[in-house]
Amino acid sequence: MIKIAVDAMGGDYAPKEQVLGAMRAVKEIDDIEIILYGKETEINKFLKPNKRIKIVNADYIIPMDEKNPIGAIRRHKDASMVMALDSVATKENDAIVSSGATQALIAGAHIIIKRMKGFKRTAIAPVIPTIDGGQAILLDTGANLQIKPEHMLQQAYFATIYANKILGIKNPRVGLINIGTEKGKGRELDQEVFELFANTDLFEFSGNIEPKTILEPNCDILISDGFTANIVMKTIEGTAKGMGKLLKKNLMSSFSGKIAGLLAKKNLQNFKKQMSAEEIGGAVIYGLQKPVIKAQGASKSYGFFNGIRQAANIVRNQVFETVENYIKEESSDKDD
Amino acid sequence: MIKIAVDAMGGDYAPKEQVLGAMRAVKEIDDIEIILYGKETEINKFLKPNKRIKIVNADYIIPMDEKNPIGAIRRHKDASMVMALDSVATKENDAIVSSGATQALIAGAHIIIKRMKGFKRTAIAPVIPTIDGGQAILLDTGANLQIKPEHMLQQAYFATIYANKILGIKNPRVGLINIGTEKGKGRELDQEVFELFANTDLFEFSGNIEPKTILEPNCDILISDGFTANIVMKTIEGTAKGMGKLLKKNLMSSFSGKIAGLLAKKNLQNFKKQMSAEEIGGAVIYGLQKPVIKAQGASKSYGFFNGIRQAANIVRNQVFETVENYIKEESSDKDD
Repeated sequence: MIKIAVDAMGGDYAPKEQVLGAMRAVKEIDDIEIILYGKETEINKFLKPNKRIKIVNADYIIPMDEKNPIGAIRRHKDASMVMALDSVATKENDAIVSSGATQALIAGAHIIIKRMKGFKRTAIAPVIPTIDGGQAILLDTGANLQIKPEHMLQQAYFATIYANKILGIKNPRVGLINIGTEKGKGRELDQEVFELFANTDLFEFSGNIEPKTILEPNCDILISDGFTANIVMKTIEGTAKGMGKLLKKNLMSSFSGKIAGLLAKKNLQNFKKQMSAEEIGGAVIYGLQKPVIKAQGASKSYGFFNGIRQAANIVRNQVFETVENYIKEESSDKDD
Repeated sequence: MIKIAVDAMGGDYAPKEQVLGAMRAVKEIDDIEIILYGKETEINKFLKPNKRIKIVNADYIIPMDEKNPIGAIRRHKDASMVMALDSVATKENDAIVSSGATQALIAGAHIIIKRMKGFKRTAIAPVIPTIDGGQAILLDTGANLQIKPEHMLQQAYFATIYANKILGIKNPRVGLINIGTEKGKGRELDQEVFELFANTDLFEFSGNIEPKTILEPNCDILISDGFTANIVMKTIEGTAKGMGKLLKKNLMSSFSGKIAGLLAKKNLQNFKKQMSAEEIGGAVIYGLQKPVIKAQGASKSYGFFNGIRQAANIVRNQVFETVENYIKEESSDKDD
């Protein structure tokens, strides 16, 4: 059995949506057990008894706007997030899903679960939908504002393993987010990464990707530093949200538009669903000793269900072990 | 009369769309004359004789994929772009509109028209549509990949003058594009810019703007370094394009969706128009001695018409003179 720890108290709709997501997950996925960390009385309001869902009571909730995430992790041993992280560090559980405060989760993951030995810079890597119905991995969306090319190489390699084992992509291609497609474009960092990636045999490099094609990129993995990729992610989100509102406003501005909106209700819902982060589940944090999945704060039960499914897939397919073995070999090569 | 030089040969649909745009401009704007630079025989295929449109023959066209833009500008005195730039440098004309190769236009502008004295780093500043039907200035979308806070202050100040005099915004507010709204977010550059902007009395500072709200920002001017703002611009473009395709695909996937698409045709066209760069005209290059407008390579006649209108507005409202006077005062203050 794969054992998934769920921080039931983080995010905007806790613990209801976490509990509903967990119930759906055990129903649809046979080889998992879920342990919910949080206020037992609160959780029990929504949980229908199930042999494969347990509750571990946790009294404290780290607030979403926690100003001192490292301090909060160290001080609050009774926080749902800390207890869930602890359970993975001690190998009681195999992976954790949380929609709690991002900075606290990253800090907690580093302090409690710890970095994979030899992996220099962890990365947050959400999967974004592409317009052909596929998916692309975007990283690093926030862990490292400044970074060296060789650390981006490790992150990109991790992403190719993930893309291969979890997304089922045979030869995942990596593209560098840049302001132009030609070689030599961008900042010094981008030029150095281009050189390094062009000469690696760890994966196929698609060259520079201009964000003009961000939803139909000629690659499976989109990489940049933690500042740029975060800006890209949020710009996609902002543009999608803004366009959705504009479309609605336009349709509502005329009678025929309103009728059209009703007629196309299902199409428009599909459209919205395809652009939704819920569909994916959450962002994996690369480079830790165990899988940590960050679900969006606004995730509903479907988002948690997908986050849990994603965590189970990672454990089942030994994604972290594969990367760890490569990193070990690489380090021992260097020791020779 | 305001005299606008138009490089008739750059861009994807030259010279037809430039000529059609110019004809519309003289028809709708009374106080302008247009001088088209390019191949006379080609231009004459589309031009209906008009007293306020002249042609100056130019034999060479700088290619859109020119690898050595500085060399091309220096070597090809007979290029349409170079001749049009020359005419503005010698004060024969008041402003130039070109949809030629961006890097060549920037290089040419620096070499021929030259920087405004005391203005340290020119910026490319397109205007993006906001979902409330308004506009926001985005900069710098490409001139300076690396930049100092004090140069961003000059650029932001230029943008506020432009927003005030051309867009008619009373007290333009400046927002810093960043990965979070709180003070202290972002890279060292972002933190330094935040401090500088928070303490200036040149304009109102709205603080950090997360691109989650990029199409409905709580400010009129969005600023970042030349790499980041370019990435933001292209991500908006890519997301808008991708979503448009996805919406179409979704509507076409069912009969009721198709009918809805027909019923809402006008609404959807409005929607598309609101997101279109053509509606704006082009990006102004800030910090040169004269107005240079970069129209998109894919601009059609409407885009050129708007670019010409924009150039005329800048000249009529003495935007460049206002900034120049401020910069002069600032420099003389420092000399004391």
